[in-house]
Amino acid sequence: MEFDESKVFAYIDEHRDEYLELLRDYVRQPSLAGTHEGIDDMVKIVVDNYEKRGLSVDVCKTPGNPVIIAEQAGVSDKVMGFYDHYDVQPVDPIDLWVDPPFSANVHDNRIWGRGVCDNKGGLVAHLCAVDAYQHVYGKLPCGVKFITEGEEEIGSPNLGWFAEHYRDRLDCDGYNWEGGNRANNQGPLDICIGVKGLLYVEMICRGAKMDAHSCNAAIVENPAWRLIWALNSIKGPDGHINIDGFYDGIPEVSKEDVEAFAQDGFDEEATKRYLGIDHFIDGATGDDLLKKLHYEPTFNICGFYSGYIDEGSKTVLPSYARVKCDIRLVMGQDPDRIYELLRKHLDDHGFGDIELVYDSGCPAFRSAPDSDFVKAAIAASERVSGQKVTLNYMNAGTSPCHYFCLEKGTPAIMCGCMSDEANIHAPNEWVDMDDFVEEIKVNAAIMHELSGNL
Amino acid sequence: MEFDESKVFAYIDEHRDEYLELLRDYVRQPSLAGTHEGIDDMVKIVVDNYEKRGLSVDVCKTPGNPVIIAEQAGVSDKVMGFYDHYDVQPVDPIDLWVDPPFSANVHDNRIWGRGVCDNKGGLVAHLCAVDAYQHVYGKLPCGVKFITEGEEEIGSPNLGWFAEHYRDRLDCDGYNWEGGNRANNQGPLDICIGVKGLLYVEMICRGAKMDAHSCNAAIVENPAWRLIWALNSIKGPDGHINIDGFYDGIPEVSKEDVEAFAQDGFDEEATKRYLGIDHFIDGATGDDLLKKLHYEPTFNICGFYSGYIDEGSKTVLPSYARVKCDIRLVMGQDPDRIYELLRKHLDDHGFGDIELVYDSGCPAFRSAPDSDFVKAAIAASERVSGQKVTLNYMNAGTSPCHYFCLEKGTPAIMCGCMSDEANIHAPNEWVDMDDFVEEIKVNAAIMHELSGNL
Repeated sequence: MEFDESKVFAYIDEHRDEYLELLRDYVRQPSLAGTHEGIDDMVKIVVDNYEKRGLSVDVCKTPGNPVIIAEQAGVSDKVMGFYDHYDVQPVDPIDLWVDPPFSANVHDNRIWGRGVCDNKGGLVAHLCAVDAYQHVYGKLPCGVKFITEGEEEIGSPNLGWFAEHYRDRLDCDGYNWEGGNRANNQGPLDICIGVKGLLYVEMICRGAKMDAHSCNAAIVENPAWRLIWALNSIKGPDGHINIDGFYDGIPEVSKEDVEAFAQDGFDEEATKRYLGIDHFIDGATGDDLLKKLHYEPTFNICGFYSGYIDEGSKTVLPSYARVKCDIRLVMGQDPDRIYELLRKHLDDHGFGDIELVYDSGCPAFRSAPDSDFVKAAIAASERVSGQKVTLNYMNAGTSPCHYFCLEKGTPAIMCGCMSDEANIHAPNEWVDMDDFVEEIKVNAAIMHELSGNL
Repeated sequence: MEFDESKVFAYIDEHRDEYLELLRDYVRQPSLAGTHEGIDDMVKIVVDNYEKRGLSVDVCKTPGNPVIIAEQAGVSDKVMGFYDHYDVQPVDPIDLWVDPPFSANVHDNRIWGRGVCDNKGGLVAHLCAVDAYQHVYGKLPCGVKFITEGEEEIGSPNLGWFAEHYRDRLDCDGYNWEGGNRANNQGPLDICIGVKGLLYVEMICRGAKMDAHSCNAAIVENPAWRLIWALNSIKGPDGHINIDGFYDGIPEVSKEDVEAFAQDGFDEEATKRYLGIDHFIDGATGDDLLKKLHYEPTFNICGFYSGYIDEGSKTVLPSYARVKCDIRLVMGQDPDRIYELLRKHLDDHGFGDIELVYDSGCPAFRSAPDSDFVKAAIAASERVSGQKVTLNYMNAGTSPCHYFCLEKGTPAIMCGCMSDEANIHAPNEWVDMDDFVEEIKVNAAIMHELSGNL
């Protein structure tokens, strides 16, 4: 065996303070994509740290903030990819922070600060895994490819552009995609191997040119009613989505998929408590519930507005009604095609006047559970943590990994070690220092596994 | 003939300036029920002016602002009632007023100021009609009964209380009820003899205890969808209201009612232009349209809110959804019974969890078209204006005249002479001075007609 992993782990433990300090350096540098505050300095820090470790770095210009590609070959011809981002969420509401958001203060075995978890913790942990191998062996068991962007927190508006222009730079054996966390805060490591797609649309129905006196309701169409009827034609109380062709092309849920539910980290009782509900849709539990959660598309109403919605009463016939819908897509569904089917459904059901606005679309993506990369991630995570991982077939968010992975079926997983109570996107974001060190080791172990435990 | 009406009209013309000044005095006194600004002084002005003309006045205490009853007997035993209010709408947005709202400035043949039309113009015109008779003849052809309240602009919250406690003071042969205007701004006088009733309710459907990530939509009920399904069960695209018993007890539209449409002031083309629509519900026109407008109940959505309704997208599963509905009732429908039927409908259709909040209820009221009072109002209005009146079977607003009139079937009409473009409830409220003088004469003429042209 060319590489003895335990030596790498020992090095990580010995240099724990150095790695924690590196993370604190990253956190102290503000990097807000929305205002551009600190972006240039942050890029310099990220580039310097890749270069300091001998990686070849390209700072790729895009219409927005640059995307950094950093690569190094390994002993095996396997290549592990990392997708991270160097920008962070805004700090508002600033008054609620106990420690200043860019202080990276340490207390309670945690580092506190904006972005320490999302995603500078992961970004630095991935780098430290490489650093440790280099220091112990002067080489890596597999090649690495870091792709680090700077606009994730504003919706990655240029990632599609980047993927198109750098298509030949994206190949690897699998991406560790930012995000992911332990199951249920302090639970076992959770590995997410897929994300549903998303089609986000708005529908607008218009009536009289202004909100009118409601006596007119006897003779003038009410756009709120018409939008309700249109929606009801799309989905009735049975939950079935009645758009012709909506379910076409969706693969059957396989026996293997159902068997894998045994490793799923979803906790029914904890979820019900958290949401304050006493049952799930149709009273589903167990495998039926997980099948719905992971393999069924949805047609969700995110928001509906029409007319007078303040306190008290106002007798008004609304001028318009609008609804925002997110349609979570599963494998086999294309967002553009679903959009067209929805338009056709409205036209065919007498709602041709209802405006349908395409907001964004993104297909589902799922890594093959039996791919080398997924198997490596599971084995590595279980070895480091000493307990079985949970497997999540659908992340809560829809991530843009399809840009990198869809064309060639490259696996992408999310396997962070941080808590899901780390206040990401909120005041007082934190990372447990032991979780951070564990994340370095997990990534070192994945590299080892992927290279066939050379 | 004991009274020669033309002498009264001549007196009104001679004292036109005096009557206009009286109206300006009323307008200069602010009287805002919401803040109580000027209410006490306004009551004093109203009481003084009734007393100055020899009427017997009672200032009736209520849980809110006082209601003033002012009466005088006439030569005949007929009694004409007047319902007016001495409070006015707030002046916001103050910046948009050209003349200060309580200036009562005169230009363009108009008096400008808050309340000059709604309803101090009517309040003073009614008084001036009595004043003119007294000066010309020292007596009135019929008795008069003024009931003048001070909380109309905040929804008459104590008028029901007043009616209950002063039930024996409400008898008369008919009320000229505040409001009403010329048909289509400068058109013929319009007489409204009925108002639909109203049941105003709110329905609230609740789901998870907070807005949750929309990935949960696969397994957690969406309250917006459930409220939409509940509403769809109440009324589908055919417009029929599917609440069992909803239409019970509604009288057939009689042949006479349909024949009366010939005098209706509703202008289809003008209404479509005003509202910016190109057709009415079901393409209705002519008698079918008027039948809908005047004789069909409605189930209108005034407002619908759920989830995220701002710009852009947010993938959220809303915690709750709420809808505000006004249900316009016709003769034969009781608001409390309709509320119970609606509750039962929800329960019977699987929506027992949807909260149903009763906001307010009021039955329809319609004066008999062939009653002496209505006939007197029509004849008087046509004689004064020199042209045929239009007849409106349903006023745009639901008025609380049922408190005074329902028990004994006392007629109530609205027959103001002011423009419907007078900016009531808006900045720059105005009254055309000729319209105001015409309104004095019309009321004098009704008194004469009601007394049998003594």
